[in-house]
Amino acid sequence: MAQEKEVASGMEWRITMADGSSEVLAPDAGFAKIAWLALKGLIGGLVLKVWKFLKKAWDLGHNEPRKVIHCLKVGMALTVVSLFYYMRPLYEGVGGNAMWAVMTVVVVFENNVGATLCKSINRICGTFLAGFLAIGIHWIANQSGEEFEPFITGISVFLLGSAATFSRFIPSVKTRFDYGIMIFILTFSLVSVSGYRVDKLLDMASQRISTIIIGTSLCIIITMVICPIWAGEELYMLITRNMDKLACSLDGCVAEYFNDSGGLADGDKESDKKLLGYKCVLSSKATEEAMANFARWEPAHGRFNFRHPWKQYLKIGASMRNCAYCIEALNGCVNSEIEASEFTKKHISNIAIKVSSDSSMVIKELAKTMKTMKKSSTIDFLVGEMNNAVLELQEDLKSLPTLFIPQPLQEAECPENKSTEQDSKKAVPLMEIIPLVTLASLLIEIVSRIEGMVSAVEELAGLAEFKSVEDRKTNQNQTTNKVVPDHQGALQRV
Amino acid sequence: MAQEKEVASGMEWRITMADGSSEVLAPDAGFAKIAWLALKGLIGGLVLKVWKFLKKAWDLGHNEPRKVIHCLKVGMALTVVSLFYYMRPLYEGVGGNAMWAVMTVVVVFENNVGATLCKSINRICGTFLAGFLAIGIHWIANQSGEEFEPFITGISVFLLGSAATFSRFIPSVKTRFDYGIMIFILTFSLVSVSGYRVDKLLDMASQRISTIIIGTSLCIIITMVICPIWAGEELYMLITRNMDKLACSLDGCVAEYFNDSGGLADGDKESDKKLLGYKCVLSSKATEEAMANFARWEPAHGRFNFRHPWKQYLKIGASMRNCAYCIEALNGCVNSEIEASEFTKKHISNIAIKVSSDSSMVIKELAKTMKTMKKSSTIDFLVGEMNNAVLELQEDLKSLPTLFIPQPLQEAECPENKSTEQDSKKAVPLMEIIPLVTLASLLIEIVSRIEGMVSAVEELAGLAEFKSVEDRKTNQNQTTNKVVPDHQGALQRV
Repeated sequence: MAQEKEVASGMEWRITMADGSSEVLAPDAGFAKIAWLALKGLIGGLVLKVWKFLKKAWDLGHNEPRKVIHCLKVGMALTVVSLFYYMRPLYEGVGGNAMWAVMTVVVVFENNVGATLCKSINRICGTFLAGFLAIGIHWIANQSGEEFEPFITGISVFLLGSAATFSRFIPSVKTRFDYGIMIFILTFSLVSVSGYRVDKLLDMASQRISTIIIGTSLCIIITMVICPIWAGEELYMLITRNMDKLACSLDGCVAEYFNDSGGLADGDKESDKKLLGYKCVLSSKATEEAMANFARWEPAHGRFNFRHPWKQYLKIGASMRNCAYCIEALNGCVNSEIEASEFTKKHISNIAIKVSSDSSMVIKELAKTMKTMKKSSTIDFLVGEMNNAVLELQEDLKSLPTLFIPQPLQEAECPENKSTEQDSKKAVPLMEIIPLVTLASLLIEIVSRIEGMVSAVEELAGLAEFKSVEDRKTNQNQTTNKVVPDHQGALQRV
Repeated sequence: MAQEKEVASGMEWRITMADGSSEVLAPDAGFAKIAWLALKGLIGGLVLKVWKFLKKAWDLGHNEPRKVIHCLKVGMALTVVSLFYYMRPLYEGVGGNAMWAVMTVVVVFENNVGATLCKSINRICGTFLAGFLAIGIHWIANQSGEEFEPFITGISVFLLGSAATFSRFIPSVKTRFDYGIMIFILTFSLVSVSGYRVDKLLDMASQRISTIIIGTSLCIIITMVICPIWAGEELYMLITRNMDKLACSLDGCVAEYFNDSGGLADGDKESDKKLLGYKCVLSSKATEEAMANFARWEPAHGRFNFRHPWKQYLKIGASMRNCAYCIEALNGCVNSEIEASEFTKKHISNIAIKVSSDSSMVIKELAKTMKTMKKSSTIDFLVGEMNNAVLELQEDLKSLPTLFIPQPLQEAECPENKSTEQDSKKAVPLMEIIPLVTLASLLIEIVSRIEGMVSAVEELAGLAEFKSVEDRKTNQNQTTNKVVPDHQGALQRV
């Protein structure tokens, strides 16, 4: 360890070594000093950067321990598969082809069970298919004489390679078999081309396939037995979590607008985070699609059977995004420059907050339906409530001004108008209600989109055969509060 | 070819062969008939399915010939790399390791130059690094005696495999080096583990690296020389195309609302497609991010230099999406149940259409700026125009009703109100202006978000050093139509 002191006036440097001896650098070591400082800065910066990176990595691992577990699982799979090299009987069984088992583990092992299964099955099928085809073409080429052999295999590689690559562009193929086709191209090229040089082609092919099967089964076992992460469950959690976030931000957004208590409270960051929950919904499309795609490969697990309608989750996600778009616009309009007058704000605040809380109740109930996987007994009632609140909101908007009068071209002509202007204590300029009308109108739109969510979740409940709650009390509740399909009806009931 | 006739009454089957001979099946061939029908249905269904699939594939190829070219390029690369097997001198140079060249081509060759370069560089660096490390650890393990060797390599594989897998979760690493890390794990495991069995480890490693370099260089050359598809250019085209779509759908959405010519015109599907152009903007986030990520690896090409600010395109994309959210909400609100009265609609239609066409003009000008890569001389003028239109819209909203009167609690108390009600020809209930107010308010919000787009594009123009148009006339234009920063100022000018 070297300590370094700088004497401000002179150029003298004293480096105290760990053993106590000290060196005094000559004052003319100006260049050395600059170099040293630069090096120190460089190292310091580097250390800081590495430190920050490690800190970030630590936080990541701390927040999501499942990712750490996945890493350990990969390490374990790799170590286990290396036994094929270390243990003589195993190595003698497969020889140098043990390489393919290692390679398979590295390439196939994914974060969730569905992805691992998808890749495994794709890899095995692709290898099989390509292997058979390549051996067939090799046999044909072999029959046609040594001169033509390279041409036949070359042309077949060109044609099949191009065609298979093209099929990767077709969306329905891409989502399911992209990896399998890549493996198909790889295996076909390798087998048919190396057939020209390798004699015991069938032996090689069978050994490779067996090692690949060993590798994939190892991956599948480890990924499914030790703390399995199911893509289906991830998708399910993502959707229910996003529903809660959507409900919170809808509720919070409207409440914040009307409840201008002002000032930055302590929990402001926290509440801000809640308000912006809908942004997660906006940006989770890609994740949802990937997860739904992987979930299809998974066997029955937990509360999900094999043919669970994962595709329906995408529809629910889309309907949620539809809502989130409107909340985004609402958030934008609410925070715009134009201020509504306090008077009108108060007039409408109660019912607007009721609409938003009712609709967030509906969303929360949907989330609960998904969480419990039981048909909700109160959802119809809640939707009815929400629609009633919308009607009340519309009534309130109507009652706020009975009529408003287009500006007459000649003001003098209408003495009545003047008298109303004198009555200005009760009069409100239209500009001041613009944000409120917009808010109300967006709320109504949001409510109609929430109904889309409700029907998407109900469709899921039908497809996945959610059980209905067998509770007398709630059943009674349901009969007294039947759904009222149209707005008019709902109004009459109230 | 077999023709088949069914006689309705009997069970007689007549199969006419291609050579003219005919067989008469006995009536007791009931099972055979069912089986034949089932088989026919199956084959027919299969043929139809295959036909549809081929049709879809053909359409895909027809619409995007560049994809077909990519496929041919892959086929070509594969054929060229197979020469290592076919040509004796080449094969003797690398031997069985030619396999790695083929594998590299299959795995590394991607649709665009950036992705190919990214994967190539990742593959080479990952292989190098892992190879050196593995050989080092193999040497250490070798020194420690045969007994400990498997344990040392095993533990190192476990630790490095886990750590490297973990680093793939860190977002900044994942976007750039995901593939490289996978190759690192692969190579490290293979080399360090097979070191236990293979004697000439250094020879093997150097041959593999050389074949990988051969494979990657072949891919890079083919992908860059023959009809190259640049990720950067794709991103650029995507953004400009989306801007045009955004402008069209904003314009069309508002125009359609006011121009209820009714009836389904011939070009309706076409116009519907135009209206929904903003949906492309909503769903293109993932593509934009992938392309921007690949574009960073590309060398200078066309009008883009090496350090082109691709990240800024993501910001532009985000600002466009911000706009699109509002257009989505606008589209929803406009198509909602509540109908505005024709009277108020007419009152506001001109100015609302002006706002939307002005703002779509701004977006189109931004698209033009990006297409020509020259600073626009008229953008400031257009933004000013757009803001003026917004002010006019606000004025119009104000002028529509000067005041509106809150409903008095006891109507009888206010005789003035009655008189205004009598004046009902001019009076409009508030409900009927709700959609208009919402539309106006969303338009204003959209305008403010378009300003975000303008500043994002201007930032890009600064970063990428767009040239300014040196045209006297437009320069004059610019000086007479300076930007007016706040609304009030703009109003005063008008």
